[in-house]
Amino acid sequence: MRSAMTDASPFHSTGEVLDWLSSRNAASPFSVEPIPLECVDGWSFEESTGNLVHKSGKFFRVEGIRVETNAGPVARWEQPIIDQPEIGILGIVAKEFDGVLHFLMQAKMEPGNPSPVQLTPTVQATRSNYTQVHQGSRPPYVDYFLDLTRATRLVDQLQFEQASAFLGKRNRNMVVLAAGGVPVLDNFRWLTMGQVKQLLRIPNLVSMEARTVLSCIPLVANGCDSASAPPAPAGEFGRALFESMLECGQAMHGDDEVLSWLADLRCRYELRIERVPLRTVDAWSRDRFAIAHDGGRYFSVVGARVEATSREVARWDQPLVKSVEKGLIGFLIKRIHGVLHFLIQAKVEPGNVDILSVGPTVQCVLGAESVSDPASWPPLADLVVGAPAERVRYSCTQAEEGGRFYHVENEYRVVELPADEDAQLSDGYCWVTLRQLNDLLRHGYVNIEARNLLGCLSLI
Amino acid sequence: MRSAMTDASPFHSTGEVLDWLSSRNAASPFSVEPIPLECVDGWSFEESTGNLVHKSGKFFRVEGIRVETNAGPVARWEQPIIDQPEIGILGIVAKEFDGVLHFLMQAKMEPGNPSPVQLTPTVQATRSNYTQVHQGSRPPYVDYFLDLTRATRLVDQLQFEQASAFLGKRNRNMVVLAAGGVPVLDNFRWLTMGQVKQLLRIPNLVSMEARTVLSCIPLVANGCDSASAPPAPAGEFGRALFESMLECGQAMHGDDEVLSWLADLRCRYELRIERVPLRTVDAWSRDRFAIAHDGGRYFSVVGARVEATSREVARWDQPLVKSVEKGLIGFLIKRIHGVLHFLIQAKVEPGNVDILSVGPTVQCVLGAESVSDPASWPPLADLVVGAPAERVRYSCTQAEEGGRFYHVENEYRVVELPADEDAQLSDGYCWVTLRQLNDLLRHGYVNIEARNLLGCLSLI
Repeated sequence: MRSAMTDASPFHSTGEVLDWLSSRNAASPFSVEPIPLECVDGWSFEESTGNLVHKSGKFFRVEGIRVETNAGPVARWEQPIIDQPEIGILGIVAKEFDGVLHFLMQAKMEPGNPSPVQLTPTVQATRSNYTQVHQGSRPPYVDYFLDLTRATRLVDQLQFEQASAFLGKRNRNMVVLAAGGVPVLDNFRWLTMGQVKQLLRIPNLVSMEARTVLSCIPLVANGCDSASAPPAPAGEFGRALFESMLECGQAMHGDDEVLSWLADLRCRYELRIERVPLRTVDAWSRDRFAIAHDGGRYFSVVGARVEATSREVARWDQPLVKSVEKGLIGFLIKRIHGVLHFLIQAKVEPGNVDILSVGPTVQCVLGAESVSDPASWPPLADLVVGAPAERVRYSCTQAEEGGRFYHVENEYRVVELPADEDAQLSDGYCWVTLRQLNDLLRHGYVNIEARNLLGCLSLI
Repeated sequence: MRSAMTDASPFHSTGEVLDWLSSRNAASPFSVEPIPLECVDGWSFEESTGNLVHKSGKFFRVEGIRVETNAGPVARWEQPIIDQPEIGILGIVAKEFDGVLHFLMQAKMEPGNPSPVQLTPTVQATRSNYTQVHQGSRPPYVDYFLDLTRATRLVDQLQFEQASAFLGKRNRNMVVLAAGGVPVLDNFRWLTMGQVKQLLRIPNLVSMEARTVLSCIPLVANGCDSASAPPAPAGEFGRALFESMLECGQAMHGDDEVLSWLADLRCRYELRIERVPLRTVDAWSRDRFAIAHDGGRYFSVVGARVEATSREVARWDQPLVKSVEKGLIGFLIKRIHGVLHFLIQAKVEPGNVDILSVGPTVQCVLGAESVSDPASWPPLADLVVGAPAERVRYSCTQAEEGGRFYHVENEYRVVELPADEDAQLSDGYCWVTLRQLNDLLRHGYVNIEARNLLGCLSLI
């Protein structure tokens, strides 16, 4: 928490970090050119299925699925999906300097990023990356996450990624406290949590990977022992977050009641996923340059040729997922009996491993809703989009994983409703405190959209 | 907790409950005859796959699976498995009498029970049971679990069943507190928790379904607030359980460390399940009377004709799963820094939805190990089986679900190691307190074998 309250660091001011990221952008010229899918080097369409696969069998595959569910207006559809069963590591190395925890962040270029270089975790490594025999080619710092003698694990959770586009893909989200000295390589900098949170107010600067790891770090170590609680932040919203994290018995619904709400919905909602060959996926077609929806909606899969200097390989081809529309990810929050509550939504998505996950109040990502057409908005979106400025607690555009997604951006928003305003809720929604939401998150219930928005919240 | 400390009830002594169960047994004569599988009424083998299915498509199906894993000595095998995707309800209605919570338990016959009539929850209902349109034929009391105006939900958790025999089967484990009067039908009795726990010391009397629901009721409401803690039980073992449930920060491993242990194993263990036609399952064959393992091990699926009086239908046929050997389910426990810890094991089983679950220290159910041949015992089994009597905290034979399993019995044991005795542990094991184990259980990590043994623990 001390790190979260510190926006100055002995190493660099936040302004200096911004300059550094700009200079990395300037120093890393690169281009992304669309190329025909059949020309994507190393990738091909499987003869029998039309699935898009890499010749090594690694990375990921684009396949088709048939979805059947009773959880929404559409009972049955087919769509392409990305299958990437390997569990990778997203990890940040932390170390205390002058009594304040600092986090080793990396400037890293990804082809799909709107601003090419973003601030990412110390390590992003697939399993194939870090298990390779030849020690020298392993990603730097990865041993801090694998070797318990080099660091203590502060956070170590398996968390799922976009369930609208991935079939059960997850990464191990880790924060480790280094035991000894940590060399600072080129492209790496020590930042306090407060500094990272400041950078999260600038669009598209902090990567999706960083946001999900940050969301796993509780804003305040929770527990009901008020004697050991640290002093509250001075700002009104920071204090409200702090109190919602430390509440004890003041939540609108008890913890068991929240689990009961989820158990009930899991019994009522059905979700059947069947793999089908990509070639036969209904309402989607493939031309030379893209696998796309016949109605021009949702997303498309395209081929890209990347030329860059800041990556291990200076030139490569890869498929990327392009979204048709910008998305919206929003939490409605409200003080209930004086304590800040978050409105969570049970979200049934094809990539969910157990029918549903806990999502933000509003989420339209790679989805059926169009931000430009209010008639198509999902429930409560109007309250998130149309809120007066003094009710908006957070608002920023953030990009999704630039290693898979091409310029996929979401508007992230947190809007506080007046305490006396009642939103009309169906039973797919539930008000919970930040302590409860954090507890659900630790156990893997919370989807990446909700997590990444939570990761943007700051005590200062 | 008051109910758990009360072994006398204003309604019936425990002796009277035993007499009642005996009289139900006497009043419910029934027979179970083996019949050829092809004669099992309503069931047949699917033409194309050889899978055993019911003509209605309901109940369950016996299919084949191919298992590939790196988690044990056998990397690849095939086996029959029961597919029953419907989520049912296992529910107990509770009500306070004279300030003590009582639980409405049912005397119920199942064909596979070693003693035909067992004490079961108030309601055992499949989804088809309780969603049927004709109100009159719904199971009695089921509305207490579905209608929030009739009762408050104290426990409401989705919990998985045997992952060695079922493909992701789970039930909703519920305890509800009735709001008004509750009629007591024939075959039902009010018991205190203390009385049920006493009956759990008698072999094969309390059903699997009752044990799993009981395991979801914390022995003591947990929390670190020592001011509000109830007085400790007088008995030494009861007090040790009580303290392990209320510990706060005295656990050998922090809560996040336990989650990290699980995350690490989930990354290292692989489990791939592929459905295959039952007909082609390797090393298993079907003759007229059974689907059985060629080596005569594990389990078999047989046909049974049941004639009985205490069920809705007086005569019916069904397939049953018969096990070849008795199983062993055991916890090693030990005081660490004065606090009782339980040795949990990460268990990779084919029916697991997320690779592994938290199992007891020792579990050999429908498995490869033979109780009669110590050379085949899994790690630590010798400590559980060979413990001197004064170290055995619980020991009883319990039967598994008699509606699916025919006379499948397990020896349930809890053995306390001396505080200074170190067991040799691989990294698939971890010591946790009862508070931690209960927290894992609430979130669905703990398998039915471990849960059902925990359900047998008593404060008195």
